[in-house]
Amino acid sequence: MGTRLGDLVDSLGGELIGDPEIDITGIAPLDAAGPSHITFLSNPKLRAQAADTNAAALILSRQEHSQLARYLGARVLTDNPYAYFARAAQHFAALAAVTPVAGIHPHAWVDPEATVAATASIGPGVTIEAGAQIGDHCVIGAGSHIGRHAVIGAHTLLHPRVSFLAACRIGERGIIQSGAVIGGDGFGFANEGGHWIKIPQMGGVQIGNDVEIGANTTIDRGALEDTVIEDGVKLDNQIQIAHNCVIGAHTAMAGCVGVAGSAKIGRHCTFGGAAMVLGHLTIADNVHVSSGSLVSRSILEPGHYTGFYPLAKNAEWEKTAAVVRQLGSMRERVRALEKLVKQFGIEPYSDKKNGE
Amino acid sequence: MGTRLGDLVDSLGGELIGDPEIDITGIAPLDAAGPSHITFLSNPKLRAQAADTNAAALILSRQEHSQLARYLGARVLTDNPYAYFARAAQHFAALAAVTPVAGIHPHAWVDPEATVAATASIGPGVTIEAGAQIGDHCVIGAGSHIGRHAVIGAHTLLHPRVSFLAACRIGERGIIQSGAVIGGDGFGFANEGGHWIKIPQMGGVQIGNDVEIGANTTIDRGALEDTVIEDGVKLDNQIQIAHNCVIGAHTAMAGCVGVAGSAKIGRHCTFGGAAMVLGHLTIADNVHVSSGSLVSRSILEPGHYTGFYPLAKNAEWEKTAAVVRQLGSMRERVRALEKLVKQFGIEPYSDKKNGE
Amino acid sequence: MGTRLGDLVDSLGGELIGDPEIDITGIAPLDAAGPSHITFLSNPKLRAQAADTNAAALILSRQEHSQLARYLGARVLTDNPYAYFARAAQHFAALAAVTPVAGIHPHAWVDPEATVAATASIGPGVTIEAGAQIGDHCVIGAGSHIGRHAVIGAHTLLHPRVSFLAACRIGERGIIQSGAVIGGDGFGFANEGGHWIKIPQMGGVQIGNDVEIGANTTIDRGALEDTVIEDGVKLDNQIQIAHNCVIGAHTAMAGCVGVAGSAKIGRHCTFGGAAMVLGHLTIADNVHVSSGSLVSRSILEPGHYTGFYPLAKNAEWEKTAAVVRQLGSMRERVRALEKLVKQFGIEPYSDKKNGE
Repeated sequence: MGTRLGDLVDSLGGELIGDPEIDITGIAPLDAAGPSHITFLSNPKLRAQAADTNAAALILSRQEHSQLARYLGARVLTDNPYAYFARAAQHFAALAAVTPVAGIHPHAWVDPEATVAATASIGPGVTIEAGAQIGDHCVIGAGSHIGRHAVIGAHTLLHPRVSFLAACRIGERGIIQSGAVIGGDGFGFANEGGHWIKIPQMGGVQIGNDVEIGANTTIDRGALEDTVIEDGVKLDNQIQIAHNCVIGAHTAMAGCVGVAGSAKIGRHCTFGGAAMVLGHLTIADNVHVSSGSLVSRSILEPGHYTGFYPLAKNAEWEKTAAVVRQLGSMRERVRALEKLVKQFGIEPYSDKKNGE
Repeated sequence: MGTRLGDLVDSLGGELIGDPEIDITGIAPLDAAGPSHITFLSNPKLRAQAADTNAAALILSRQEHSQLARYLGARVLTDNPYAYFARAAQHFAALAAVTPVAGIHPHAWVDPEATVAATASIGPGVTIEAGAQIGDHCVIGAGSHIGRHAVIGAHTLLHPRVSFLAACRIGERGIIQSGAVIGGDGFGFANEGGHWIKIPQMGGVQIGNDVEIGANTTIDRGALEDTVIEDGVKLDNQIQIAHNCVIGAHTAMAGCVGVAGSAKIGRHCTFGGAAMVLGHLTIADNVHVSSGSLVSRSILEPGHYTGFYPLAKNAEWEKTAAVVRQLGSMRERVRALEKLVKQFGIEPYSDKKNGE
Repeated sequence: MGTRLGDLVDSLGGELIGDPEIDITGIAPLDAAGPSHITFLSNPKLRAQAADTNAAALILSRQEHSQLARYLGARVLTDNPYAYFARAAQHFAALAAVTPVAGIHPHAWVDPEATVAATASIGPGVTIEAGAQIGDHCVIGAGSHIGRHAVIGAHTLLHPRVSFLAACRIGERGIIQSGAVIGGDGFGFANEGGHWIKIPQMGGVQIGNDVEIGANTTIDRGALEDTVIEDGVKLDNQIQIAHNCVIGAHTAMAGCVGVAGSAKIGRHCTFGGAAMVLGHLTIADNVHVSSGSLVSRSILEPGHYTGFYPLAKNAEWEKTAAVVRQLGSMRERVRALEKLVKQFGIEPYSDKKNGE
């Protein structure tokens, strides 16, 4: 059932110190690992826990290796133990996975004018409209809907109950979690005499390769042009991406983030949970925004940005919030004090100095 | 395939300056429009771009008309170019749209005691419970669910995978985007000895005419009475409207807004993305709340309201947040300084003045 | 159709003062109740309204009873009128409820290797995978999906279009509102050279008894171990619970709350709408977090915590936000003033004092 440790290291790389014959049945955290598990140390704070782990094998860096005399099991040395852990976990997850059955489930409905690869697996309750294309080895989970002329690239997985609407496209090896909606109408209205007139949303959503989209996340179609999610972007759950946004390659966003219309976000950015970006802004590459922070102006320099009100006991917050409301007048009071002090203060102060 | 410019203007109004015989095939932004497109100028900042557009025709105001000598194509003059653009876009979207097929898809399930208009289109995977009424020319997208005794007004469109639950009602010409849930239970519990006892939610949701509801937005049913969404309200994606709220006519909310229970919101209000309104508050008509702002008290005067922490580089935020935590004592220190300065300052200050 | 008041009190407890023969047909708010309704007074501010109610019977505390001479109808005295109201409302809701039909709807699809109790009701469009177990008297709403080896405890109700994914478990008497996703993949990636490598999420979600989960709420499965929702937890709509969180028993969260990965939240806590908790934090029992507040450090003491920027007219906010940006230098200015005042101020001040 398991994997020979030597074979695992042959497959994933790294340097093995220890018995290659050990049978590894799975991966586990340091404190839960048993004698048939491999585990990993990526956070130096857990060094003591690593020393005491019962795991058969430990993934760690060369740096940690030299500081971890007490641990007696096998070691796998690598430059990036966390990435190695990810690949090892993928290995064991693949062993445990149920292979999806190729073909169209009898309880699915596929329009005769849709194209479904023979190797694709279409679950029960799925509905696929005319002109849609489902690539090789795709898995379309139960109850998902694929709209007209939508295109799903090879090896892409839609979990159950995804809406992937008309004319949207996703590349290869994508993953869309349950409940996500790709291609809802962008929120566009013109106001005329107090009434809102709908602006039809005629663009699509273009999603690159290796993109993951979280549960109940929504990505709207563009108004006249497309909303674009570039390669390698990772979006957590309940994120809202509005119409005409561009999310640069390999950017990652944690849950509940919102990005308003036409924002252009760079590559390799990260956004903490519930961060918000206003519309029509530009965010440079390598920008990192903390959780709960609202980006109200373009950010043209890489770096780490934050803006949330610090938490306090409610009674203290009531005091500080009251002062916040008066900060304009507080500044005036400090200015007045400075002026006063300067006005009558300069002489005694300079006298004294001169007198020394 | 296109529309004669003269016919478009006859249909939509405005004054045409130029050749009515031009064939217009679609609408495009200023910089992407080609010689068979109509485009529009509503933002004066884009005047230079408008002058250079390759569009066949340009929608603009009389004011811009007099300042735009360089542009040589046809012009359509109107008081509200953005609203005209919306209507023109609707015209071309309608030409491109696939006409939904009237009737009940063989892969839908409709309870024999439900009433479905002959002109309505019921998609595959739809489920409709007893007593529900689906009006003329409605479109119910694939996989949507209509609960018992729910009522959908004429010409209303539900995109795929909407939940429209028991006894809820929506008027005419409504649009509900994919994944929205109308009529989930309101969040009501009584606490007894640390345990929560559910208060059954026996009200419904009443939605007026011309309302649009975004993807994955949720509107809860009332506890004893109904939650009410008045005519012309526009809600973006991932909005949460709690039980017993009233949202006044023609109010618009951007993505991720939350409104807590029993809040009464006026007409013609706008809420920026992720704005929050606490429960049992009253918001007047014509109130505009900025993105990311929490409304914690009733707002009885129209106007523009804001409350979010300004973004900064993280290192600067750490400094300012530390001071925010001490603002109560900072105010004391300023008061103490004022007292001190006043106490001993008056004499030298007035002496000096007197001495001049 | 109704219930004899005496029978209601026999069933729910409390002391009846008045005619037990009155026929009660339902429950209504104080101002809407008519002569066949029972109503309740739990908020002392509504005492005047209670005095004027047309209800046949009024649920109230002994304390209010002694202060409410004017009201002439029947009274039900109880220690916790709001909890009594909840139970009475449950009674009338049960009378009005449509009994779900036991059995598997012909438009559902159930894998032959799934186990469905004979008393369970499986709606149209439902899909249930191999190895899933559906307990006695469960109701699985239309279009819901139950994954492989998922377990649904007895008397649990899933509203339409819920995703309850592979290997997740919920106990007895649970309620899951429409659109919720239980068991999406946690958001876990290792970064290697700017690319994100997926960490497979191999844990599940364990949900206790008497838990309610709101519409479009998402609860992610754990990475190596499980995400845990203990007994009696109540989650409102559009909440995001990340992987490996533990939510302690009887904790309640209002709409749009987000909890990042591996946070451990205590028992009997409450979170206001859109509150956020960062990852890996510990929150003690009996902690109450206000709406819109971000918890960025562990909270080890029970109490009420708040942190949101106070709302103001936009013009005032622009002033206060500008000062917030300069709070670091403002503190320096106050320090400089204090130093200055101290430096030259001590002498005249103490002189004066000594001179008196």
